[in-house]
This record gives sequence, structure tokens and C-alpha cells, in this order.
Amino acid sequence: MCRWMGWYGQPVRIEELLFESKHGLIDQSLHSRMGAETTNGDGFGLGWYSLSGDDPGVYHSVAPAWNDPNLRELAAHIESPLFLAHVRATSGTAIQNTNCHPFRHGRWLFVHNGVLAGFPAMRRDLMLAVEPELFPNIQGSTDSEVLFHLALTFGLEDDPVAALERAIGFVEVTAERHGIEHVVQASIGVSDGQRLWAVRYSTEGRSRTLFVSADAASIRELHPDNARLQRVRDEDRLVVSEPFSDLPGIWHEIPESTALVVQPGEDEQRPFRPQRAAVASGFTAPATVP
Amino acid sequence: MCRWMGWYGQPVRIEELLFESKHGLIDQSLHSRMGAETTNGDGFGLGWYSLSGDDPGVYHSVAPAWNDPNLRELAAHIESPLFLAHVRATSGTAIQNTNCHPFRHGRWLFVHNGVLAGFPAMRRDLMLAVEPELFPNIQGSTDSEVLFHLALTFGLEDDPVAALERAIGFVEVTAERHGIEHVVQASIGVSDGQRLWAVRYSTEGRSRTLFVSADAASIRELHPDNARLQRVRDEDRLVVSEPFSDLPGIWHEIPESTALVVQPGEDEQRPFRPQRAAVASGFTAPATVP
Amino acid sequence: MCRWMGWYGQPVRIEELLFESKHGLIDQSLHSRMGAETTNGDGFGLGWYSLSGDDPGVYHSVAPAWNDPNLRELAAHIESPLFLAHVRATSGTAIQNTNCHPFRHGRWLFVHNGVLAGFPAMRRDLMLAVEPELFPNIQGSTDSEVLFHLALTFGLEDDPVAALERAIGFVEVTAERHGIEHVVQASIGVSDGQRLWAVRYSTEGRSRTLFVSADAASIRELHPDNARLQRVRDEDRLVVSEPFSDLPGIWHEIPESTALVVQPGEDEQRPFRPQRAAVASGFTAPATVP
Amino acid sequence: MCRWMGWYGQPVRIEELLFESKHGLIDQSLHSRMGAETTNGDGFGLGWYSLSGDDPGVYHSVAPAWNDPNLRELAAHIESPLFLAHVRATSGTAIQNTNCHPFRHGRWLFVHNGVLAGFPAMRRDLMLAVEPELFPNIQGSTDSEVLFHLALTFGLEDDPVAALERAIGFVEVTAERHGIEHVVQASIGVSDGQRLWAVRYSTEGRSRTLFVSADAASIRELHPDNARLQRVRDEDRLVVSEPFSDLPGIWHEIPESTALVVQPGEDEQRPFRPQRAAVASGFTAPATVP
Repeated sequence: MCRWMGWYGQPVRIEELLFESKHGLIDQSLHSRMGAETTNGDGFGLGWYSLSGDDPGVYHSVAPAWNDPNLRELAAHIESPLFLAHVRATSGTAIQNTNCHPFRHGRWLFVHNGVLAGFPAMRRDLMLAVEPELFPNIQGSTDSEVLFHLALTFGLEDDPVAALERAIGFVEVTAERHGIEHVVQASIGVSDGQRLWAVRYSTEGRSRTLFVSADAASIRELHPDNARLQRVRDEDRLVVSEPFSDLPGIWHEIPESTALVVQPGEDEQRPFRPQRAAVASGFTAPATVP
Repeated sequence: MCRWMGWYGQPVRIEELLFESKHGLIDQSLHSRMGAETTNGDGFGLGWYSLSGDDPGVYHSVAPAWNDPNLRELAAHIESPLFLAHVRATSGTAIQNTNCHPFRHGRWLFVHNGVLAGFPAMRRDLMLAVEPELFPNIQGSTDSEVLFHLALTFGLEDDPVAALERAIGFVEVTAERHGIEHVVQASIGVSDGQRLWAVRYSTEGRSRTLFVSADAASIRELHPDNARLQRVRDEDRLVVSEPFSDLPGIWHEIPESTALVVQPGEDEQRPFRPQRAAVASGFTAPATVP
Repeated sequence: MCRWMGWYGQPVRIEELLFESKHGLIDQSLHSRMGAETTNGDGFGLGWYSLSGDDPGVYHSVAPAWNDPNLRELAAHIESPLFLAHVRATSGTAIQNTNCHPFRHGRWLFVHNGVLAGFPAMRRDLMLAVEPELFPNIQGSTDSEVLFHLALTFGLEDDPVAALERAIGFVEVTAERHGIEHVVQASIGVSDGQRLWAVRYSTEGRSRTLFVSADAASIRELHPDNARLQRVRDEDRLVVSEPFSDLPGIWHEIPESTALVVQPGEDEQRPFRPQRAAVASGFTAPATVP
Repeated sequence: MCRWMGWYGQPVRIEELLFESKHGLIDQSLHSRMGAETTNGDGFGLGWYSLSGDDPGVYHSVAPAWNDPNLRELAAHIESPLFLAHVRATSGTAIQNTNCHPFRHGRWLFVHNGVLAGFPAMRRDLMLAVEPELFPNIQGSTDSEVLFHLALTFGLEDDPVAALERAIGFVEVTAERHGIEHVVQASIGVSDGQRLWAVRYSTEGRSRTLFVSADAASIRELHPDNARLQRVRDEDRLVVSEPFSDLPGIWHEIPESTALVVQPGEDEQRPFRPQRAAVASGFTAPATVP
């Protein structure tokens, strides 16, 4: 089982949230390593936006995150107002940098915790539905990267939630044709550097968890010793696939089948409904070899 | 530019040919590293058959071959009557184990020195033509792995040379549709543990080199200090993409557009002619998403 | 916490004990990864002897053992009558191949589960006591490698148990000078290809566990589906740092402060008593810079 | 043979000097890879200072620099007014991150192109002379890291050039005791974030090359298409172990046995004379095991 976290708010040194908090993502991996829960030692990734407005940077590594000196250096030297971090636990595909999240396309970052059940059997059909011009960009062998490229194919850059609804609908239709049950299990994070979308969904209706920090006060409470975070603003948000702590009132759980949009002004939460019918009727698969 | 070598003959410790010879593949890499020629530092692979008749073993590494302790250990402890070794120089795809040769399917090993020009543009069409049941086995992002799976699709296990002629013909037809010139540049090694096929071919008719050791005497001459190789049999063969030395009479050059079959009894050499027409008319692309 | 296992007996394919048993070392790592206990994902090593009588081969990797294709290949293709395997969990030193066990010197292999407390403070003094000719062979930064070289300095190749008693005595004397308590925590495996020594000891008298398979019948019981292991001989022994299963009667626990010698004929078990006095009085530290 | 470069001046994106210039360090590695000269594919390192005044960041990698996506990301997203980059070609020690330059101690960075001849034989004596408190910081197995810690022992943080003169003098005295000739071959870069010291020296008097950019105009000439570098200031300096181009007038060669100090105001160049006598008489080796 993978884990991920997203930060949206004032610029922070990445290490402040990744390492120094005793509730950070790496600390989670370390604790899971210490026996409490599942380990995530099969790859790590970080995607971050700069204040400069450049395309996001990405760091991928197959070294264990809790013991990767390069990651510590990066996290200590990079400030970012918006980043996504992901620790991976493979269910079979190769452990290699090209299989690490976040995946990137231009200004877009994508992380996925979960699985497409029966992916090897569906892989060809799903890749085939990817926009031909995007096809060469698929460099690894994971279900998540293909799902990202399907979402790009279905318009992620115009309307991320709608595109994910169509992409996941398409996966579900494909799975039915293959006789695969409960195909999608997902918590997904997407960003373009301006907003952060977080989706919780599973075909079965028993999704992996997803949480958003309740408010500025809760972030301050999570990091009592961090002077900077004591100055956190009301708009700052932490989104996490797993709760970092059990302090009451800190986290809002994102409900089943829901998309959260973290953005300037009021955040938005709305139902997430895969567009299966729409895909079946309206979508024309890209042309194939004659 | 990649390099490869194949050994077919009496069992040898792999290190005897890979490291100890001053004309070995690793020594070549080392020399190229020392300034004489192109380096091959982007991945190494070894596939070997055992006397036991098991499926071949494969070792892949992205460490430089000249300085990989695991490879030295393996090569020192494994005896094999038939192996293929490959050093890689990427022209762009990721440096990762899943991109290292030899590729394997059951008892079959495949190495390729060369390139499919314009591969990113053709990648989708070529992968699409791979037998759907084989599709999930493509784990990396190289042109060579796709070419291997095309050859498997076109019958490699029944008739390797004919299958390669059809696969390369199919690549050439696809390239023409994409307006790509001189698409195939290849020296290819294939084995099933019983025979060793070596093909030299390029669309342009200016192929990378390919050589086979002239006879037992020439192998003895190449390894004057190797007691075991002084007992080499007349059937033993070394196939190499680049000449290891310039001793006159040691190597036979495989001509342009030629397939060599190293096998029990007399070796065979025959023209290699891609089957473009056959493919265009007779080949039915595997069914795609409806 | 690290783990290790040793096999002494008839030749087996390494994978039979490492992967295929549901009680194997890798399976343990996998289970610990699944949440039950500590993970060992910071390095793997295998040292094996061949029937040929050659020096042992060694394979080291920092990829997670449960997902390392090269390890699976090796384990599937190598037969060995005597091997040591080790999974590592670092408590701080770098994750790199030169820090992976087994360490090797000529025909000798050495694995260690445990720790020398306060090692950074003692490192210089301990390295200084290593025989100057052995000094350049220390390639990594672990306490275990230094302990091995101390044991070599104190005569491991002549009398492994006595040398370990002197080496650990020397470490304990050094620790006292540095004010370090409970310095040694160890289960140690050593072999020269003829015998397998296993030591359980800690300064505190609360040592990591160490077990030896009870007898041939117990090994057969551990691997009910393995035809080869059903033919296991009475002399065959499995030594493990952690019990693979809780089947009653399968394992003998090695007592505290005990050395086990697995050898042709009757095995031997004897007290392990660090030689602190002997070292303090009789040992002359190697000459240092004038 | 290693290579290194140092930048001292206005903040630049590291990629501007490392990748985008056709005379950059990576381009050099690539060219050497393409056949013109020695390859440097055994490890890469980058140490950079930020405007914030923090301790420098360090990135180490054993992937080939020309094909390391993480390095490209870093170089594209980090701005620095002072950095050191190093590509490594090992002459035998392990290829691992802990052997990659720059080495760091607090605010200090150190790179070395060259070799200490006969290092394995001297390694123990040299490490023994390292200040005991610094000893645990030696994490790798290279001669360069030991030389750095000797220089720290001899006062690098107070007077870098004098400390290097004492450290190298000590190495030369030690080498003589071991009967090693021509022991030191070095071009060395050192920085504390305020100044950049560059030393060219060899025992034999035939040192590796070392160059400094002539003046602002020459840097502009080296990067005609880089708008930012067209605004380069007179104080900005590029120091390189190998000339990036042969444009006349671009580079000043640092003479044999010379130390260059790049600093605010006028740079300084002075003779570099190892302090052998001083060491022999005045230096007291740190206390050893009693």
C-alpha cells in the first residue's frame, strides 16, 4: 500500500513536513518499518512547485526514503508552496525510478495510492486508449502511470475531476469486459501548481482513506515546535492518504466517492462519479494500426 | 552503440571470456572508457544456459560492467556452454534493469545492438502489433524489447530467422507510414539453448559489424594463457558485434543482410530478407479495443 | 534488526530455502513488510560455497530482497552445500553494497545480526587494532565488518571461536574505556566451507535469538512439498537467527553465550566467553605512526 | 581521471553551467563518452551554497551524469552563487555514493581530481593521523576523503592553503616511509561559501591541469546564447580542471604548485609548498590505543 501527502499553502522547506514532523510521511514509513504497519520501501517520489512559476521539479528514488541522503539534502534546501510526496509499495511491477510517483506532464503532477486490479490483463487495452501523442511518454510499467495518461487523454488539463471520472469509468468498462471485479482502488492527488485536487474512490465503495487538515489551527497543533508553521495561514492545507496522528479535530476525512479541490478562496468538495455510460457511448478509441 | 558477444561450445567459466581475455567484452568497454572508442556504460546484461537444461538465467545491472563486483562473482562461479552478454549505450531511454538485454521469454534469449530510428513515434503502433498475451511481458521502454516481442508474435519459437524477417519487415512498413528512413540498424543474437542465431541487417544496407570466430585454432590463439581454451573443440564458436583483436585470420565477418546459425554439426549462413510484402498483405493485426 | 540463515548439508538450489519455503528468510522479510514485525529492507547478501572447492561467491544488493530479480535468478541457478544469507536493517550507516554481509576473506564468510553500541565513538580504536595488512580490506563503514577484521586479526582462520572470544573481549574492554554499556549484541555466523560456526552472545546477557534445526526429520517437516528436501540427510542443518515457524520440536534454541559448531560427524556446542583479561594483558596493539 | 568545476559569482541556475553550455562538465563527460577522451562514469557529485547562508547542499549519484534525471531536475531548479561539481573515474575503490565528491564538513566542501599513489598501503597510517573526533565522519573508502579529513585535522577551517600544504606534506612523508614515489597528484577545490580555493600540485611536478576563466568577457563569450550570463559581473569566476574550449584568451592556466583564492575583491595566486619538514618535526600524531 502506497501513501502520499500534499501541501498547499505558504512556502515551507519540504523537510519541515517530510522529516521534522513526527507525523510526517517519512516518519510514517519509519514507523511502519518499526513494526506498527505496512512498510513503503519500494520507491519514493517528490514533485514540487517553486515560487518562480516554473514547471514542477521531480525527484524519484528507489532507495528507502528513511535513509536516502539525497532526499534529505533536497528536502532541506528546497522551499515550496505546493508539493506532492509519495512512498510506494509495489504489488509486483519493477522497482525503478520510472515507476515512482509523482508522474508529470508539463505543469501537472499526479500521485495514486491504490491499484487497478487485474492490470496485466487490461494493460494493452488501457494503453491503447491513451492519446497516441501521449503514448511515448509512458516510460514505466505501472497501472498508475497508465491511469494518469488516460486522464490526460480524457481532458485532465481542462477539467481534472471530469477527466478522472471519464478515465476511471473507462477502466471500469474495460474491467467488466475482462471479468475483473472491484477494479479501481484509489486515492489520487493532482495539481497544476495553482490548485490541488484530491479524489477518494473505489469501484467497490470501500476506498482507501483520504484526509485534509481541518484548518490552520490544526496544522499549528501538529507541529508545536515549528516556528514557521506556527504562522500558518488559514488557507494552508495538508492532504494525506493516512492520518498522521489521532489528535481529535485535526483531520477532516474526505468521504467515499468524493473529490476535494483545494484552491484560493473556499475549498470545494463534490461527488466523484465515474462516467461509464458517457465513455461507452461517446468515446471514440484512437485509431489503431490499419 | 551497444556491443554483445555470444559463446557456443564447451562449458566455460563466464569470466574466462568476459574478464580474463584481454579481448573480452568488458575489456572492450574498459578500453573504450580509456579513450580509444565509444563507452558502453548504460547497463549490462548476461543470459546463460546451464548444463542442467533449465531455462536460462539472466543478470541485469546498471552499474558499469567494468566495476560491478556482483558481475565478477557471478562470472567467476558460473559455468555455461552457451551464453549471451551485452553492454548498453542508451540513446535516450531510461537506464534501468528492465531496459537491459538479454530479454528472455521461456527458453529464449535475445540481444540487439542497434536502433529502431524514430521509435518514439512508432512505439504505439509496434506495441499494438504484439500478440496481446505477450503484451504484459513488456516491462521496459526500449525499442529492442518491442522488437523481440514482435519477433515472438511472428513465430520466433518456431523459426527464428523467418520470424525476425517478418518482424523487421513489419517495422519497415510501419516506418514508411511514419515517413521514417533507414529505420532498422541491427546486429541481433538469439538462442534457445540449443542453437545460436546471429543476424546482421540494416534497412540502409550499412549494418553494424558482426563476426564469428574462424575455428578452434583461432580461439586458442585469442587466449594463449587459458589452459582450458587451449582444449577448445572445433565446434566451439564465439560471436561478437565488434572484433576483439586484429589478428589476421581469427574472425569471419558475417556479410550484410545475413543470418548465421551456430548449431551442432555444420554451421549455416543464409540471406536475411525482411518480409515486408508478406506482412503487408497477410498479417492481421491483433484485435484491438472495440 | 538484521536476520540471517545458514545452510549446511547436501547441495540445494538456494531458492529452495530462500524463496520457496514459506518459512524462508525472504518470506520473513516479506511478512515483516506486511506488518507483523520489523522489516529488513536496507541490504541483502548471500555467500555460497560450490562443490568445486573454490572460494565462496558473494552477492550483495541494496534492492529489497523480496523484489530483486537478480537475486531470484541467482538463487534459482546456484546449487550449494553451504551458504549464508543475510538481510540488513541499518541503524544509521550508509545503505551500500560494501556494507552488506556476508563479509569475505579468502575462504571465510562472516554474518552478524546485532550491533556494537556506541560504534562511531569506538570506530577509530577498533580499526586501529586491526592487523595493518588487513586494514585496506575494510571497504565499508559498518561495525560488523570491523568486528570481522578484528576476529581475523585475533586468529579466526586458526580457531574461529577463540578468535571471536578475543575480538569481542577487545571490543568490551574498548567500550569500557569509552564508558559504553552493553556494547555487544550479536548472533554471528562464520564458515570456511567445511564447517559452520554460530555464536549467540551479548554483553548484557540478553542476546538476539539463534536456532538450529533439530534434525533431518524437522527439515522435512518444514518443507513438505519439496521433493529434494524430503531426502534430507541426518547431517543437514539449518541455522537461523529467527525461528521460521512455531512447529513444536523443529528448532533447538542455542543458549545464551554459546557457540555451535556444525561439522562432519557430531555437532558441538560450547560456552562462549569473551577473553577480556587475556586481551588486556597479552595483546600488543599493532604499531602505529611513529 | 576525474574532472571538476567550480562557479563563484552571481546566482545562476546550475543547469546553465552544467548542461546548457556546450562547454559544460556534463557535456565533457558526454564527449569523452563519444570517443574523444576519457569517460567519467563512476559517480557524480554536486555541492552548492544558497543565498540563504545555510550550509551547502550535496547531491551524490552513481548513475552516469549524462543520463541522471534527478540531477537534471535539481540543476534546473536550484540557483546558486557558488557551487562545485565533480565527475569521478575510479581507479579501484567501490562505486558508491559515499565515495562521490564533494565531501562536506559543516560549511566546507572539497573536491579532488587526482590520486594518492599506493593509497591502500598507506591508508591505515593516513587515517590514523586524522583527528579522532573527525574519524567517524569518514564514510567511504577513497584517498580523497582521507586527504580532506587530514586537511581538516591540519586546520583547513582556519587557513585552507596552509592546511593543505601540511596535509600533503604529511602524505609525502608517509609515502617515503612506504617507498612510494610521486605520491600526490592533485587539483583540489575547496570552499566555505565565501571564497573558493583551487590548488594545483603534484609531488612529481607534473600536475593535472587547472584553469580559471580570464574575466567576465570570457564567460560571456563561452555562453553566447545565455541571456543571464551575458550580464555576468567582473568578479564572477569559473574554475575548471580541464579546459572547456580552446577559444584563445578565455582561460588562465593555474601554474604548477600554485594556489588560487577566488574571493571578493582581487583574486590571489600564491605558491603551494607542502610542509614536509614542519610536519615531521612539529606534528604530534593523535593519541592511539594505549
